[in-house]
Amino acid sequence: MPIKSLIRTIPHYPKPNIMFRDITSLLKDPIGFRITINELVRRYADMEIDKVMGIEARGFIVGAPLAYALGKGFVPIRKQGKLPAETIGHDYELEYGTDRIEVHTDAITSGERVLLVDDLIATGGTAEAATRLIEKIGGQIVECCFVIDLPDVGGRKRLEKLGYSVFALCEFEGD
Amino acid sequence: MPIKSLIRTIPHYPKPNIMFRDITSLLKDPIGFRITINELVRRYADMEIDKVMGIEARGFIVGAPLAYALGKGFVPIRKQGKLPAETIGHDYELEYGTDRIEVHTDAITSGERVLLVDDLIATGGTAEAATRLIEKIGGQIVECCFVIDLPDVGGRKRLEKLGYSVFALCEFEGD
Repeated sequence: MPIKSLIRTIPHYPKPNIMFRDITSLLKDPIGFRITINELVRRYADMEIDKVMGIEARGFIVGAPLAYALGKGFVPIRKQGKLPAETIGHDYELEYGTDRIEVHTDAITSGERVLLVDDLIATGGTAEAATRLIEKIGGQIVECCFVIDLPDVGGRKRLEKLGYSVFALCEFEGD
Repeated sequence: MPIKSLIRTIPHYPKPNIMFRDITSLLKDPIGFRITINELVRRYADMEIDKVMGIEARGFIVGAPLAYALGKGFVPIRKQGKLPAETIGHDYELEYGTDRIEVHTDAITSGERVLLVDDLIATGGTAEAATRLIEKIGGQIVECCFVIDLPDVGGRKRLEKLGYSVFALCEFEGD
């Protein structure tokens, strides 16, 4: 499977000693992009899912094609102030300061089964905030799905401790 | 075609007298989302296209599934400072101040045929900036593609005057 080999590493981005895993090199490759989405389609085709929710912005690039291929609706989870109708938000801690993500309160109907998608899980802070949002609007999270897991940073374990199923297409160790 | 009927209007967003056309109501509808992408696939399936480029962030939600369905690579055009490798940028005027979009310099190879995608064209300022970027890195723009055109605001004419072909799935008058 060539997915991992198509993800390039940018050393020292966005700051010293961070090895940034860049999926743009995978996305621009027609075969790589297609295989990435198809692998996820294969995993989720037989699961009961009502909505695919993607986290701004790279989560849109993975989540929207997956929703399309599965024949499901797509719901964006966005940064503060980007959604035009009534929203609910959740604040979460960053290394320095806090951030906030939001979702439309009518994005799903209560009880709908949601697949949460982002490109990468590191500490899991944003993903955990997204799970809180989804539950606030009545969603049931089927799984949290990523292209890349950085297991050394602990995000997967953090989500699993909260009771969520986590899936990633590939892992990069040593982060 | 139910696409237009699934796009809701949020009056006075983000400021008084603006009628905001909100595609999240279309995206979350599994049939509406599927038809939207399929209509675009039908238009572009027989055109010679190498890359689909989407403008952050809603352009990702339309452009990425389209790239997937067409079997092409996807390239994100992003806000300043979001791309990790070597970029080229273009500044453009907003109503108040300026903004900047960027693309990786190695996102395409010179001469590749590019389909530019965003959710909506209003004044065309961002789209024009995107066309400049694509040409700076050697791309040939096949067409500029949108879900929604606001013809009264003039963006389509602006792009057409520059020599670009423009396509939109639906129009909202009176903006």
